[in-house]
Amino acid sequence: MSQLSVTEAAMRSFSQANDPRLGQVMALLVKHLHAFVAESQLSKEEWLRGLEFLTQSAAITDADRNEFSLLSDILGISSMVDVVSQPDGGTSSSVLGPFHNHDSQLRPNGVDLSGDQPGQKTWLHGRVMNVQGQPIAHAEIDFWQNADNGLYPAQDPLQDPQNLRCKIHCDADGNFNLLTLRPHPYTVPTDGPVGALLAASRRNIWRPAHFHVIVSAPGYVGLVTELFPADSAYIDNDTVFGVREGLIVPLLPSQNAEVAARYGIATPFFEMNFDFHLVPQA
Amino acid sequence: MSQLSVTEAAMRSFSQANDPRLGQVMALLVKHLHAFVAESQLSKEEWLRGLEFLTQSAAITDADRNEFSLLSDILGISSMVDVVSQPDGGTSSSVLGPFHNHDSQLRPNGVDLSGDQPGQKTWLHGRVMNVQGQPIAHAEIDFWQNADNGLYPAQDPLQDPQNLRCKIHCDADGNFNLLTLRPHPYTVPTDGPVGALLAASRRNIWRPAHFHVIVSAPGYVGLVTELFPADSAYIDNDTVFGVREGLIVPLLPSQNAEVAARYGIATPFFEMNFDFHLVPQA
Repeated sequence: MSQLSVTEAAMRSFSQANDPRLGQVMALLVKHLHAFVAESQLSKEEWLRGLEFLTQSAAITDADRNEFSLLSDILGISSMVDVVSQPDGGTSSSVLGPFHNHDSQLRPNGVDLSGDQPGQKTWLHGRVMNVQGQPIAHAEIDFWQNADNGLYPAQDPLQDPQNLRCKIHCDADGNFNLLTLRPHPYTVPTDGPVGALLAASRRNIWRPAHFHVIVSAPGYVGLVTELFPADSAYIDNDTVFGVREGLIVPLLPSQNAEVAARYGIATPFFEMNFDFHLVPQA
Repeated sequence: MSQLSVTEAAMRSFSQANDPRLGQVMALLVKHLHAFVAESQLSKEEWLRGLEFLTQSAAITDADRNEFSLLSDILGISSMVDVVSQPDGGTSSSVLGPFHNHDSQLRPNGVDLSGDQPGQKTWLHGRVMNVQGQPIAHAEIDFWQNADNGLYPAQDPLQDPQNLRCKIHCDADGNFNLLTLRPHPYTVPTDGPVGALLAASRRNIWRPAHFHVIVSAPGYVGLVTELFPADSAYIDNDTVFGVREGLIVPLLPSQNAEVAARYGIATPFFEMNFDFHLVPQA
């Protein structure tokens, strides 16, 4: 068979799938992977090295560590999936990442998540609105970030599993606020084959600092996103390509005495203000 | 970032690789995988199902079983790599498959591999030549196939590990011959996630019958190929897309009394005649 006929036969082999969408997705995967082999003129030795890479990734993957998810992230595939599924209008979405935890506890709007742990106090506040700028009452914010040592609870046995994460409900005017800490850049895991690939490629291994947020409200498309302090290192060089222009937000010193008094903290503390805009469900 | 800028950033991230070829291959992989996501408008749920598929493939992969190699085969990627690396002229190559064994023993030209095991006696013979049709003296043939039960020794503890495999050296005129058995169609392994994908896609799981052959000689490009009896089931529907037009060969009854007497077998036996043409090294 010629190159074209191998590709056509492999695409056609999925034409009888029980689920037509499965057949469509697989045929397109075949089409584009074959185009990759043709354009790169991939040699058998290179194919074998690729296979060995996947085999090494398999060996390091378990319930707590998924090298394939990381590979998807550092190839920008996770971000690409995010971008193509972004509805028109509304706040940009971004990647979910591996550290989301479904059992975060509901805390009062205004909660202090920072307590007495080390870090720079940061007051995060804003509103949840529709694309016309009208408030959405009682929208839910699901929030998580890393601690002052750069680690998430799942990476750090010394942290409480609920540290620096919560759900809160906005008030009737869509307002939310909470006290937390300035987040920190961190590296993706580099002890596996993906780390070796990043090293061989002389690639940056860091993500810029970010807050993770999922915003949801009945009747609206759920928003999975991240907020990036504008002055973070690596803001222009995120190793998983999650930064979107509209998600880069100033994180500035504040002298707001009323907020300082409410939390019993010193001024200046840091402040980030961000309004989310949700798209109605179709 | 837009779709284009995510793709450009991810491609550019490989531009500083230590090995420029690594950077080139990775950038092209990014380009084509992103194009797949864009054209299929892959949803997050579908991406998660794909990730789960790879995770399940990882769980079933070990030293004796590689689900990623099988996935490459049934997507036609292995065949595509084979086709793009095929040098001009000469006999078509085909896929190596998972059952090649580097320690096959050197046997005399004309060897009887069939012995007294069940199966249809088949005399395979031909010549090894260059692309001008001149014989290549003493070229090496590395040969393997499955037994009458459809299994290779690696799949069947009742077979000798060396059953129906050998290396032989052609004579000074490039002639080779051996007595073996008619090979049989067989299915790819279907007990893993690839098997589930083939079932959901209502795809054929069989390969047509074939002999595996590697032909090598100093100064020539080594040839990894397969010979397919023309009357085999699934000849038009190989689940790994390995069939090439020039490798479909008649396997016909023979009344050759001299050959029958040499091996002490009855007529008619089966006969396949095939000449290999090797391409000189660059």
